[in-house]
Amino acid sequence: MSFNLEGITEVALGIGLKLILLFIAYAIINPIGRKIISKILHSSTNKKKISEARVLTLEKLLINIYSYILIFIFITMIFGVFELEIGPLIASAGVVGLAIGFGAQGLVSDVVTGFFILLEKQIEVGEYVTTAGYDGIVEELGLRTTQIRSFDGTLNFIPNRHLEGISNHSRGTMRALVDIGISYNDNIDHAMQVLQHVCEAFSTDERFVDGPQVIGVQSLGSSDVVLRIIGQTQNMEQWQCERDMRKAIKEAFDQNGIEIPFPQQVTHIVKEEA
Amino acid sequence: MSFNLEGITEVALGIGLKLILLFIAYAIINPIGRKIISKILHSSTNKKKISEARVLTLEKLLINIYSYILIFIFITMIFGVFELEIGPLIASAGVVGLAIGFGAQGLVSDVVTGFFILLEKQIEVGEYVTTAGYDGIVEELGLRTTQIRSFDGTLNFIPNRHLEGISNHSRGTMRALVDIGISYNDNIDHAMQVLQHVCEAFSTDERFVDGPQVIGVQSLGSSDVVLRIIGQTQNMEQWQCERDMRKAIKEAFDQNGIEIPFPQQVTHIVKEEA
Amino acid sequence: MSFNLEGITEVALGIGLKLILLFIAYAIINPIGRKIISKILHSSTNKKKISEARVLTLEKLLINIYSYILIFIFITMIFGVFELEIGPLIASAGVVGLAIGFGAQGLVSDVVTGFFILLEKQIEVGEYVTTAGYDGIVEELGLRTTQIRSFDGTLNFIPNRHLEGISNHSRGTMRALVDIGISYNDNIDHAMQVLQHVCEAFSTDERFVDGPQVIGVQSLGSSDVVLRIIGQTQNMEQWQCERDMRKAIKEAFDQNGIEIPFPQQVTHIVKEEA
Amino acid sequence: MSFNLEGITEVALGIGLKLILLFIAYAIINPIGRKIISKILHSSTNKKKISEARVLTLEKLLINIYSYILIFIFITMIFGVFELEIGPLIASAGVVGLAIGFGAQGLVSDVVTGFFILLEKQIEVGEYVTTAGYDGIVEELGLRTTQIRSFDGTLNFIPNRHLEGISNHSRGTMRALVDIGISYNDNIDHAMQVLQHVCEAFSTDERFVDGPQVIGVQSLGSSDVVLRIIGQTQNMEQWQCERDMRKAIKEAFDQNGIEIPFPQQVTHIVKEEA
Amino acid sequence: MSFNLEGITEVALGIGLKLILLFIAYAIINPIGRKIISKILHSSTNKKKISEARVLTLEKLLINIYSYILIFIFITMIFGVFELEIGPLIASAGVVGLAIGFGAQGLVSDVVTGFFILLEKQIEVGEYVTTAGYDGIVEELGLRTTQIRSFDGTLNFIPNRHLEGISNHSRGTMRALVDIGISYNDNIDHAMQVLQHVCEAFSTDERFVDGPQVIGVQSLGSSDVVLRIIGQTQNMEQWQCERDMRKAIKEAFDQNGIEIPFPQQVTHIVKEEA
Amino acid sequence: MSFNLEGITEVALGIGLKLILLFIAYAIINPIGRKIISKILHSSTNKKKISEARVLTLEKLLINIYSYILIFIFITMIFGVFELEIGPLIASAGVVGLAIGFGAQGLVSDVVTGFFILLEKQIEVGEYVTTAGYDGIVEELGLRTTQIRSFDGTLNFIPNRHLEGISNHSRGTMRALVDIGISYNDNIDHAMQVLQHVCEAFSTDERFVDGPQVIGVQSLGSSDVVLRIIGQTQNMEQWQCERDMRKAIKEAFDQNGIEIPFPQQVTHIVKEEA
Amino acid sequence: MSFNLEGITEVALGIGLKLILLFIAYAIINPIGRKIISKILHSSTNKKKISEARVLTLEKLLINIYSYILIFIFITMIFGVFELEIGPLIASAGVVGLAIGFGAQGLVSDVVTGFFILLEKQIEVGEYVTTAGYDGIVEELGLRTTQIRSFDGTLNFIPNRHLEGISNHSRGTMRALVDIGISYNDNIDHAMQVLQHVCEAFSTDERFVDGPQVIGVQSLGSSDVVLRIIGQTQNMEQWQCERDMRKAIKEAFDQNGIEIPFPQQVTHIVKEEA
Repeated sequence: MSFNLEGITEVALGIGLKLILLFIAYAIINPIGRKIISKILHSSTNKKKISEARVLTLEKLLINIYSYILIFIFITMIFGVFELEIGPLIASAGVVGLAIGFGAQGLVSDVVTGFFILLEKQIEVGEYVTTAGYDGIVEELGLRTTQIRSFDGTLNFIPNRHLEGISNHSRGTMRALVDIGISYNDNIDHAMQVLQHVCEAFSTDERFVDGPQVIGVQSLGSSDVVLRIIGQTQNMEQWQCERDMRKAIKEAFDQNGIEIPFPQQVTHIVKEEA
Repeated sequence: MSFNLEGITEVALGIGLKLILLFIAYAIINPIGRKIISKILHSSTNKKKISEARVLTLEKLLINIYSYILIFIFITMIFGVFELEIGPLIASAGVVGLAIGFGAQGLVSDVVTGFFILLEKQIEVGEYVTTAGYDGIVEELGLRTTQIRSFDGTLNFIPNRHLEGISNHSRGTMRALVDIGISYNDNIDHAMQVLQHVCEAFSTDERFVDGPQVIGVQSLGSSDVVLRIIGQTQNMEQWQCERDMRKAIKEAFDQNGIEIPFPQQVTHIVKEEA
Repeated sequence: MSFNLEGITEVALGIGLKLILLFIAYAIINPIGRKIISKILHSSTNKKKISEARVLTLEKLLINIYSYILIFIFITMIFGVFELEIGPLIASAGVVGLAIGFGAQGLVSDVVTGFFILLEKQIEVGEYVTTAGYDGIVEELGLRTTQIRSFDGTLNFIPNRHLEGISNHSRGTMRALVDIGISYNDNIDHAMQVLQHVCEAFSTDERFVDGPQVIGVQSLGSSDVVLRIIGQTQNMEQWQCERDMRKAIKEAFDQNGIEIPFPQQVTHIVKEEA
Repeated sequence: MSFNLEGITEVALGIGLKLILLFIAYAIINPIGRKIISKILHSSTNKKKISEARVLTLEKLLINIYSYILIFIFITMIFGVFELEIGPLIASAGVVGLAIGFGAQGLVSDVVTGFFILLEKQIEVGEYVTTAGYDGIVEELGLRTTQIRSFDGTLNFIPNRHLEGISNHSRGTMRALVDIGISYNDNIDHAMQVLQHVCEAFSTDERFVDGPQVIGVQSLGSSDVVLRIIGQTQNMEQWQCERDMRKAIKEAFDQNGIEIPFPQQVTHIVKEEA
Repeated sequence: MSFNLEGITEVALGIGLKLILLFIAYAIINPIGRKIISKILHSSTNKKKISEARVLTLEKLLINIYSYILIFIFITMIFGVFELEIGPLIASAGVVGLAIGFGAQGLVSDVVTGFFILLEKQIEVGEYVTTAGYDGIVEELGLRTTQIRSFDGTLNFIPNRHLEGISNHSRGTMRALVDIGISYNDNIDHAMQVLQHVCEAFSTDERFVDGPQVIGVQSLGSSDVVLRIIGQTQNMEQWQCERDMRKAIKEAFDQNGIEIPFPQQVTHIVKEEA
Repeated sequence: MSFNLEGITEVALGIGLKLILLFIAYAIINPIGRKIISKILHSSTNKKKISEARVLTLEKLLINIYSYILIFIFITMIFGVFELEIGPLIASAGVVGLAIGFGAQGLVSDVVTGFFILLEKQIEVGEYVTTAGYDGIVEELGLRTTQIRSFDGTLNFIPNRHLEGISNHSRGTMRALVDIGISYNDNIDHAMQVLQHVCEAFSTDERFVDGPQVIGVQSLGSSDVVLRIIGQTQNMEQWQCERDMRKAIKEAFDQNGIEIPFPQQVTHIVKEEA
Repeated sequence: MSFNLEGITEVALGIGLKLILLFIAYAIINPIGRKIISKILHSSTNKKKISEARVLTLEKLLINIYSYILIFIFITMIFGVFELEIGPLIASAGVVGLAIGFGAQGLVSDVVTGFFILLEKQIEVGEYVTTAGYDGIVEELGLRTTQIRSFDGTLNFIPNRHLEGISNHSRGTMRALVDIGISYNDNIDHAMQVLQHVCEAFSTDERFVDGPQVIGVQSLGSSDVVLRIIGQTQNMEQWQCERDMRKAIKEAFDQNGIEIPFPQQVTHIVKEEA
């Protein structure tokens, strides 16, 4: 039995040695990893002028994920040190991992996408965006879910992985565009002059960044000649500008006797007996 | 044979030792895991003011899942201790796990999504929501299935994984929007004054949070000039408000001789012989 | 050769011992698993008041699946005990499992979904449901396939995995909704009074759970003012109620001289020469 | 070298023993499996009254699959017995299996789906079905492909995996439905009486299982009041019944002076100068 | 060192023995497999009367695939015999196999589908088919790609895996269908007699397999009563038959004073002042 | 320590031997593989008359891929020879391989598809094709990307994996098709004679491969009888031919007094009081 | 215990030796890999004349990826050298890798696609492109995300993996296309002469690369004969050119008395009594 005792002692020593090595490795790797995460995040966000608060949020998230993974590896390795037949653990982990991998891939996708949306500042709270078929003001930006308030008051919860392609309408000046149809009988030059007068009146409007202008005959429609006016306005002012321009154009046309024609049709009448 | 006996004794001792270690590990890990789940859940839900009842539901669910996984690992490890050729078990588990992983991934997705819908309070029973092509009042919120009662009385059962993007119409004031067309012959200013009078009458209506207002010429249509009125109402009152406003506007227009025009067309008649 | 004999005897003993252990394990695990399944199923279905017959069906299914899996594991473990190079078995099982996993995932999905539809009582035989693009009366509920009889007599076989979102029209009162257009020249109040009279006549109809009511001006259409009537009827009576109400409204309008207008158009005639 | 010889002899003996065990195992498992397949198939099909010929087809298929799998396992295990480094075989099998698994998953899906379509008798040769966007008479039912003959003469080959949801129009009586519009000036009661007379004439027609009936005012359309007639006919007779009823209704309306109105429009004429 | 030499000799002998066994196994399995393939293919194609040329093509393909796989397994096993650490090979093969498995799954799918299209004779060169959104004459049938010539002259290359559901228009008689609208004022019986006369004239046309017949009132349209004529023609003659019938019907109607009506509308004129 | 030294020497010798074997294997396999690739490619392309330049491109690509794989295997096997715990390498490779496998599968698909498009000569630079929703002239054919120049001048870059189904409009004669509507009052035979005259004039046009012909009454439309003319033209000349034929037909009809009718409608006038 | 000491010493020596070998391998492989990357990138980009700045960006990216992978392999191999039960690490890595592999595959796809878009110069900052349903000027090109500014001012963030097929409108001359309808009564030759005059006036316009030309009768429409004019303009000038041409054509037609007709209809009047 002496041989066994020796063997056991030896094994115990080996286990102890390995455990100590593991703890040392953990104690070394843990803070190093945290510092690397911190450093990379700060250096990469500094260039993009992201607010300190947001950086802290991202940092906290990354360090949390890092810690969970490290602890998970550490625990499974301790199991291994005791030689407790790691095989079944692999089997279990494999099956469970497969189920989770399939079921939770949406969750991982949400967080990965959310992380980059935050990092790349694609949207901010309060901005007007269109994405994933939703349209409205961003109300909350989460790592998993983004909340967008539609203009009709609805609050939309959208998992971030569905934010494939974000149209942000709050980044710079917006275009005000008015298409206006005149009669085929009206003189195009005259109508364009009248419209240009209206445009000039609006060009002093401070909402316009780049004064509206008549750009020409957009189409020769079935009932009217369509003229187009384009201008650049301050953000979110484009709709009210368009409304005001439509009203002004209608009134200018009334004064100048230019007709906005109804749909036209030529009917060839053939009289028949009942 | 003495050597064999010794060997067997030794092996038996090893098995016993390992079993004891396993049970101790189980006895330690089990309550710790439960406490960690409890603590994380409570601390993360406290911030969001989720009702105690819902937290208990989530806690129960998480601890159940945790227990099943732990027991599964524990059982497979006991198999391992007896050295009962764990290989075939891995093979079996792999094949079965693959089949289950593919077939039941929907189930896991349902629960994962359901968990976050509950945790993030995206919808509550009794709220009016639009999601996954369904539209109605939430009647029951489950971890796997959500039940939505359509306004026509239909009860819809929707697996949670299909709730990709939830539009919740019961979170805050709603918009009442009325578009009204006036004749091209009518004076826009006059019509807007009449509409503004109607709006002012409604602004004292307690259903309106933000009194309705005429915002301008929404479009120069083919037959009419479209004016838009927008107001903010209490939740779920928007439709009745819109109906009442439409009636009031129609009556005000009748009194003021403003026409809501029918579709217009200009017909050029050419007489031909039969 | 004595050493070999001994070794073989020893090995044979080991095999025998392992086989006995395996059979004991099987004998213990088998009934325990069955009882757990039974117990869980009964306790979870008791709460939901599912008929005894259905519970037995589910129980039989679950115990069958459980038995097949257990036997499969048991057989592969016996192979392992004889040390018959379990490697190739793993390889074979892997390849076959992969093929089956991909090809039969639909089958597993069907059964998983079917199980929950039965368990959660989402549909019952005889109910009128809309799901997966099919619409009709449920004729048979299977674990793999659901049969729905369309109103035109067609029998639809639908694999359960396609039942993503089930609209059950047989759970509670249904809405009867009639939209009726009146002329822009008619007095809205008068028309609403006439309609209200019709509604009051129907409110004594026992098919109506909640008497129909005029709720107001639903829209100012291009040719008519649309009024909406809503009522709650007994299940499956909503269509006949709507038909009867339409007839009654038409007759009431005829008596009161209120017009249901044809499409309107204003035509500006310009005579031209041929 | 004597030691080696002994070792080799020993190994050879072991190999022989294992081979014998393998062959015995094969000889036992093979017929048992076949019998189990036979028994399960017969017992499960007996309940469903499936023709003997079809059962034999299914049985042959299942036993073929079973045999191929068994032989594959057997061969790989023999490789294993000779200790011919089974590792590379696993590697090869894995790579090839992966490629096949991905590429041929459609094939497996086809067979699995085809098997259940045969077993559950969802369609029979000669039935009129709609599935996978195809519409016609089933001409051949295969395990991999189903052939459907469209009414225009086209022969469609459809892989079974695309038969997701089968609408079988040859299982029971079919509905004959005729919607007929009458003028807003006509008396609804009168028109319904005339239609009821037509229906009564058809109720003696042996093609009708459940005599056609006028069920009421289906809609108040833009130009007409739509009445609906519904009846149950023998399978595949519904179209001719509908055609005959349309002709009879048209003639009855002509006799009774009831008009089937053309599209109506009210035109407000405003004369303008050219 | 003598022990080492012995060991090496022994190992060398083992390797030699294994190599010989491998070569023998290869020499046995290779021709057996080829014969099995040949036999299965011939027996399964004999029943279907597939031309000898096509069977040879399929046989060549299958034996090629079989040979490549066998050689691949053989080479990896030789590596294994030399005990050249087969682990890394597995790793490499796994990674490469994964990449190929994903990237080339389309290729495998193409060949698998192509194989069955050839084997089941779903299409032949020269047939008129509709599949995968393409419509035309099959010009070439490959294992990977099928070429279809559209009627406008375009040559379409379609990977076989997209041929999900093939509509073959060259298998049997085709339907000629003509819908013809008559006036609501015309007598239905009279019109049907005239049409029947036209049909009888065509029934002697040798292009018609089953003489065209008037089957009744297909619909009561908004402007006309639609009558339907159906006949069975020889393959690919259906269009010209329909064209000829349309011309004959138009001329017969002109002779019998039956009108094919233009779209009808009832206009209620209300005169208004400009 | 002498035993150790021996062991180490022995091991070193073993390693050396294995390395030499590896290098020899590499030196043998490398050129053989290259020659096989070359030979297969040349023999398979010779039959298809592919230009020498293109064959060289394909050959270079295939030999590059082959070399990278071989070197990768070789390096990992050297690692294995040194017994440097190949396990972690497998683990790393597995994780990285998984990530790459998923992320880069598009890349592999692109190259595989591109390879076959080149090999099968589905498209050539300068041809007019429709594929993946794009329409235009092929400007560059790459292994990963194909460039197509739309007729409006846009240059489209399309990853090859999206080229599922290629419609090549530059392979053979194209169809010129003109549908022309005549009045219901015109004589069909007369109109067809006039059209036939036009066709005969064009049949001498060298752009026509198969002279245009009147094929009959394509449809009895709501306002006109539609006649169809079909001809075969040289590639890319079909549009101009159609334009020229339309002009000629219009002029021939004018000369012969045949009318191309406007949309027709019968209006039943009912006068009402305002 | 002396034996143990020796063993430990021996093991320690082995570990040391392996570590040294590892570091040497790392020191050799690292710079070689970097150089290979550099060289391949430069040689492959040189041919395509990509700016030095962009090559540096790509090089930096590739070397970063390479370094991370190398360090990851290196660390896991060091773990292996200490024989710290690498099994659990594999298990952990497998599970985590699976989750990441699924969740982050989008990320890898983005980078791979982004890399090739940069390398192949498919788009440049400032170009006008249509891709993934977005349309506008490229504002920023990232490895993960591309920013496109729509013409209405919206800034769109699009993950690169969605850039499947890029339509680049800034590569070469663009087509200006004007379709113009003339009356059926007008002489086609006369109208084409007038249009040709307009075209000739524009052919001296420097915006036109290839002077506009009348190409013929595009269609015989329901109300007009449509003539088509096509020209090639400088990039981005096509819209303004089209607008100017429309204006000029309208004025030329007015001068020459050619009518752009309104929609035409023939109405057969039948008077009925109210």
